[in-house]
Amino acid sequence: MSGKITIWTFDWVPPGPRGYVRDLRLRWALEEAGLAYDVATVPFDDRGPDHIARQPFGQVPFLDDNGLRLFESGACLLHIAGKTAALMPEGGQARADVLQWVVAALNSVEMVTVPWWFLRISGQTESPLTGWMEQRFDRLEAVLADRDWLTGTFSVADLLLSDILRVPGDLGALDGRDTLKDYVARNQARRAWQKAHADQLAHFAASDATR
Amino acid sequence: MSGKITIWTFDWVPPGPRGYVRDLRLRWALEEAGLAYDVATVPFDDRGPDHIARQPFGQVPFLDDNGLRLFESGACLLHIAGKTAALMPEGGQARADVLQWVVAALNSVEMVTVPWWFLRISGQTESPLTGWMEQRFDRLEAVLADRDWLTGTFSVADLLLSDILRVPGDLGALDGRDTLKDYVARNQARRAWQKAHADQLAHFAASDATR
Repeated sequence: MSGKITIWTFDWVPPGPRGYVRDLRLRWALEEAGLAYDVATVPFDDRGPDHIARQPFGQVPFLDDNGLRLFESGACLLHIAGKTAALMPEGGQARADVLQWVVAALNSVEMVTVPWWFLRISGQTESPLTGWMEQRFDRLEAVLADRDWLTGTFSVADLLLSDILRVPGDLGALDGRDTLKDYVARNQARRAWQKAHADQLAHFAASDATR
Repeated sequence: MSGKITIWTFDWVPPGPRGYVRDLRLRWALEEAGLAYDVATVPFDDRGPDHIARQPFGQVPFLDDNGLRLFESGACLLHIAGKTAALMPEGGQARADVLQWVVAALNSVEMVTVPWWFLRISGQTESPLTGWMEQRFDRLEAVLADRDWLTGTFSVADLLLSDILRVPGDLGALDGRDTLKDYVARNQARRAWQKAHADQLAHFAASDATR
């Protein structure tokens, strides 16, 4: 059953975050799943009560799936992944493996990389978070040293972790870590990522014309 | 079906983290669910290959459930919650509501509170993360202004969010935010929290004798 799925994102963002806004994760997951979807928007500049009612922190994305509503990209990913074994096996240890790596990406990796990046754009280039992040990268390199994907085959956990690693990678934090750089490249080589990424760039480029 | 569930935690920790080690979240969830469990340990001082094989970042807790193995407290909580409607409704919007708040707790709230705390214990009392954390608390206060629990009734999302808010609360970051302080107190008043907390304290107290 496919039905009507809508991803909500901003109507416009400045050039910097284009290609990184987290609706990318949902677009990518739905492309991998082969599910049709629409994209709808909320204003970037004025995050009013309607937006807050859908996403209490004023963030994007959020999702409609045949009337069911979800926010938080990680929750939306688990919901989408629950629809197809292409993103998450249906049960048993294989499903548990994907679930634990999705949460590890959200709560053990991104919990360090995003604040590290936030301090950096706040002007704090030397941060106590750097050592903590390096420890995480050391461990991820060990995990990925002998496999292409976190759980044997591509899953929603790879989709999420590779997207999380992109920003530190762009800022040079993966330099010398070929295992992690290759892992990100392997994920970005997927047709579904390339379509999702091009579609997000096109969405925001089109918004310039009406602004 | 209950079967054999084992929570893995450290054999010993210093006094500071006692009452806060994340096996508390799993103990609490299993107490709420009315499921029997054992507690097993790995060495705190020497995190060897056996530990890393179970938890790649050298953290605790991790879980065995009848042979199924999981790490990351958030993933273990979702697994346990999947066993009982007392922690997460079985389907539909009610389940989606709990899932999105579990992920929000992990990836929108704890992603700020833990790095904020980490900078603080690293000696950085003034942090660019403080303003970000305050924004999150503002929004959580608005959400909880007219309800006792995030999703109408107590769920695993409340268990997780209230535990996340304890550390900033202890450090004064919730001062003047009675809605959030009351919310944490409401969760800690639950019999299951009190048993889980007392059991963790007793576990680590007992370990002093053999050290």
